[in-house]
Amino acid sequence: MNAYIITIGDELLIGQTIDTNSAWMGQELNKIGIWVKRRMAIGDLPEEITSALHEALQQADVILITGGLGPTKDDLTKHVLCKYFGGELVMNEEVLQQVTQMFASRNLPMLDVNRLQAMVPNNCTTLINKSGTAPGMLWHHQNKIIVSMPGVPFEMQHLMQTHILPLLLQKSDTQILHQTLVTAGIGESFLAKQIEAWEDALPPNMKLAYLPSLGMVKLRLTIRGDKNEDLQMPLLQQFEALKKLVSEYLFADNDEPLEQTISKLFLQKKITLSVAESCTGGYIASKLVGVAGSSKYFEGGVVSYSYAAKQNLLNVKKNTLEKFGAVSEECVTEMCEGILEKFKTNYSIAVSGIAGPDGGTDDKPVGTVWIAIGSAEKIVAKRFMFTKNRLRNIELIFVYALKMLLDEIA
Amino acid sequence: MNAYIITIGDELLIGQTIDTNSAWMGQELNKIGIWVKRRMAIGDLPEEITSALHEALQQADVILITGGLGPTKDDLTKHVLCKYFGGELVMNEEVLQQVTQMFASRNLPMLDVNRLQAMVPNNCTTLINKSGTAPGMLWHHQNKIIVSMPGVPFEMQHLMQTHILPLLLQKSDTQILHQTLVTAGIGESFLAKQIEAWEDALPPNMKLAYLPSLGMVKLRLTIRGDKNEDLQMPLLQQFEALKKLVSEYLFADNDEPLEQTISKLFLQKKITLSVAESCTGGYIASKLVGVAGSSKYFEGGVVSYSYAAKQNLLNVKKNTLEKFGAVSEECVTEMCEGILEKFKTNYSIAVSGIAGPDGGTDDKPVGTVWIAIGSAEKIVAKRFMFTKNRLRNIELIFVYALKMLLDEIA
Repeated sequence: MNAYIITIGDELLIGQTIDTNSAWMGQELNKIGIWVKRRMAIGDLPEEITSALHEALQQADVILITGGLGPTKDDLTKHVLCKYFGGELVMNEEVLQQVTQMFASRNLPMLDVNRLQAMVPNNCTTLINKSGTAPGMLWHHQNKIIVSMPGVPFEMQHLMQTHILPLLLQKSDTQILHQTLVTAGIGESFLAKQIEAWEDALPPNMKLAYLPSLGMVKLRLTIRGDKNEDLQMPLLQQFEALKKLVSEYLFADNDEPLEQTISKLFLQKKITLSVAESCTGGYIASKLVGVAGSSKYFEGGVVSYSYAAKQNLLNVKKNTLEKFGAVSEECVTEMCEGILEKFKTNYSIAVSGIAGPDGGTDDKPVGTVWIAIGSAEKIVAKRFMFTKNRLRNIELIFVYALKMLLDEIA
Repeated sequence: MNAYIITIGDELLIGQTIDTNSAWMGQELNKIGIWVKRRMAIGDLPEEITSALHEALQQADVILITGGLGPTKDDLTKHVLCKYFGGELVMNEEVLQQVTQMFASRNLPMLDVNRLQAMVPNNCTTLINKSGTAPGMLWHHQNKIIVSMPGVPFEMQHLMQTHILPLLLQKSDTQILHQTLVTAGIGESFLAKQIEAWEDALPPNMKLAYLPSLGMVKLRLTIRGDKNEDLQMPLLQQFEALKKLVSEYLFADNDEPLEQTISKLFLQKKITLSVAESCTGGYIASKLVGVAGSSKYFEGGVVSYSYAAKQNLLNVKKNTLEKFGAVSEECVTEMCEGILEKFKTNYSIAVSGIAGPDGGTDDKPVGTVWIAIGSAEKIVAKRFMFTKNRLRNIELIFVYALKMLLDEIA
């Protein structure tokens, strides 16, 4: 079974909104063996909606549409789809009740435009949206399934999880399985060279994809087959072979974010962590805290952006700053000692660098970064030369700091 | 002039990569009056690349293609396009030299697959890529422009900025102008109600779009016309009227990120800021530090995730934590006083809350958050009830904290 995703909204075309919905839908559909054939983004124009739907119906079995269902004047999707399938808008009492309750529970007055959101085509199955005011709509047409959902991510996700995915799961007959691993500290082409012979020998129903991002390359191995075939075993055999080939650079043998891998490791070993950040300004801490349950191992950190903060909060010596500067082995080591002392954790990370775009000098150009990993036993500090781009450097420091931390613990 | 964006890569369809390239391209094209008509994402299959290109050629004047140009086996774009336009791959000495230099300057050995990246179709204009190893390619065909670029964001951006945008700018004859403002603390439908009469009276060449995100709604006013028309004045007149109508909720009268608005304000007033974060774990600090030049006003912060950190680093009283808990007006006020004292800044932000998904109690359910803004004169604390979703809550706290800070300063 193939799917086609249509996202509607001028804000997507003009680039004011980044489309995260399609990625989420793609992931969920793949888990149940449905291949997303294409994704199309179009503007808020009736003729574009009609023409995209027409094309999608020729290409796929399932058409998932998001966006253009809000209460405002630029939201046209419901009207266009209703007309396309030859229906009329009628008041749906169940939706009206749900919308009324939602406003009541938030203590907000309900407006006429909100009331209008309970007007639903009389030829579709209405999908109650418990997270918002616009219901989902589902049509069966030419033996295909067409679904329209709001563009607000958590409303779309709610409708997919409660209504659409269970329905599609029943209908699918192919199976697609993936195994993904994460490497850090090696480039895409070197990795490819390292595993070339193995990749060339893969059977025709398997495929390897390289997914490079800053500081890391993910490798995704995919197998396709019939729903009743045993694909798990051949996939895992090849995956184990791949893991051995890249063991030196392996961060995780799954598709988790790095911070999730670190979180699991710390919880499992019952150890604790603190961080002292200069140029990353709290980015490492905030990524760690983004994982639910991180309070069980992560104690906190200090963002010591100024010299004064490094001295007052982390006990970095004035002499060290004057003699070696903030971006130095000596300073990052003292930051690491200071944060270990303040938070009494088993491990700590300290970083100091010049993130850019300005602030570099001849001997310390933009992109110069010191990272230290500390424990009761020792402090290991390394110097890196990253790029001239601030946000790229912050992300790279995050990846390399976590790789250094992993290597110290493992 | 219309553009059509094609992004190539299974990783986009399967959702393992979020497509940020299209958004960036959409923004840049709009600035020069080129409307993106559609965006399509397809997989790494020759027939899909051919068919998408065929469709795009029927719909638009400029076709921008990204992805599938890497050194590995799943990268097919160059071969397919070369064949489509009836050319052959030949070694390009200029590209080869550039790739060789790049490897030499990084002290890395060059592999055969990297050498192959210098093979370029003999019927296209080759665009040297100074940020990577895959060159861009440009064809003129049926009076249209077709460009193929790498999918790595900064490589694509480099090629767009140095080659494509200047070329397109010469050719465009329509003009599209936008003015965007940012509101915080009001819902989309209430905003729409507030400005309904004004919106209904807009002339036919103007359009208002609502761009809601967590805690905020952006309003984008667009005018379209001929390249030689004066569109600036009528657009600004309507925009000023709109600003008056939403003044109470206005965060900025441009499309900057909130942290950029705050940065400008602090630099202009020559005042300084520090933050004490519990449940946001450094997220507020890291967003502020993401803006270049923030070291001139932002001193740093403390991530006091544990009780011990609140006491040791921020001097929160043990008694306060025992009597009122960490998520209380008393605690957040002491955190705010503590961080002001440690960093000696003019202003400070302190937050403490239950981000979820667990950790709530009957009287303090998940989503309960206290935010305090402090200065030498006073500390203002407010209680909020956000959602049950951790990452959503962290983002909401960021928006509301910055709105509170803005209201205190303005």
